[in-house]
Amino acid sequence: MRMSKGVEAALHCCVVMHWLDGRPVTSAQLAEFFALPPAYLQKTLRALVSDGVAHAARGQAGGFTLARAAESISLMDVVSAVEGREAAFQCEEIRLDGRSGTLGSRSGPCAIAHAMHRAELTYRRALMAESVADVADQTGSGVRDRTVAALV
Amino acid sequence: MRMSKGVEAALHCCVVMHWLDGRPVTSAQLAEFFALPPAYLQKTLRALVSDGVAHAARGQAGGFTLARAAESISLMDVVSAVEGREAAFQCEEIRLDGRSGTLGSRSGPCAIAHAMHRAELTYRRALMAESVADVADQTGSGVRDRTVAALV
Repeated sequence: MRMSKGVEAALHCCVVMHWLDGRPVTSAQLAEFFALPPAYLQKTLRALVSDGVAHAARGQAGGFTLARAAESISLMDVVSAVEGREAAFQCEEIRLDGRSGTLGSRSGPCAIAHAMHRAELTYRRALMAESVADVADQTGSGVRDRTVAALV
Repeated sequence: MRMSKGVEAALHCCVVMHWLDGRPVTSAQLAEFFALPPAYLQKTLRALVSDGVAHAARGQAGGFTLARAAESISLMDVVSAVEGREAAFQCEEIRLDGRSGTLGSRSGPCAIAHAMHRAELTYRRALMAESVADVADQTGSGVRDRTVAALV
């Protein structure tokens, strides 16, 4: 089970946008800043816009900004925007197939799916409990100031 | 982020092996029981054997059994056997690439990677806290008895 690499890029870009405090940054600037393939990063940033995490402004002074305060953007918001909202564990109800399906398995919910989804919920809750502002605040102010200076 | 479909199959097969209480069951029997592709299930069962979750015996009366008591096989053991032990979030340290890498980012651990791994740890702990016996016990005894009768 692997998250797409876009999640790491999206999280770092969100921290940078938070530090830029409303000043737009282009996809090309961010791609150069992190040495990432521009088309790939553009797609990741578009996913953040589609999910209401970032805002894109067109034109000469255009670029990406966070769509709301970084304090109210959780890591889960960013992960969901890039990875989608589907559960990692997909129950295909194989217990209802083949001979198994004839044995009355349908009579109750599947304990396996229930346990797997319950565990996944703890993960989602942990990601919901941490915001982009939280992780940004854990990074040294020197890095923050030099990042802003490099991109403005 | 998706787990492979093999995880659902592996978990159901572990529950069945627990119910069979040491009586070997073949890959072909389990494939027919859940209407799963035999080659695919064989690969999944082999992964359980490689990781010490199941045991395979050759010969006329051969087949698969659990390698230890179902009480001591966690859902995490089964997920790890099928999916591997790598973290879902892979930190590629993009902060150390491009211009970003020149700004002193190396001076401390990455707050993003730290937060993502901490969240993932809650997931793993939840999967470690639940055993194959736990989920089996949450399934009706009627299903258990009919499953054993169908496979012995």
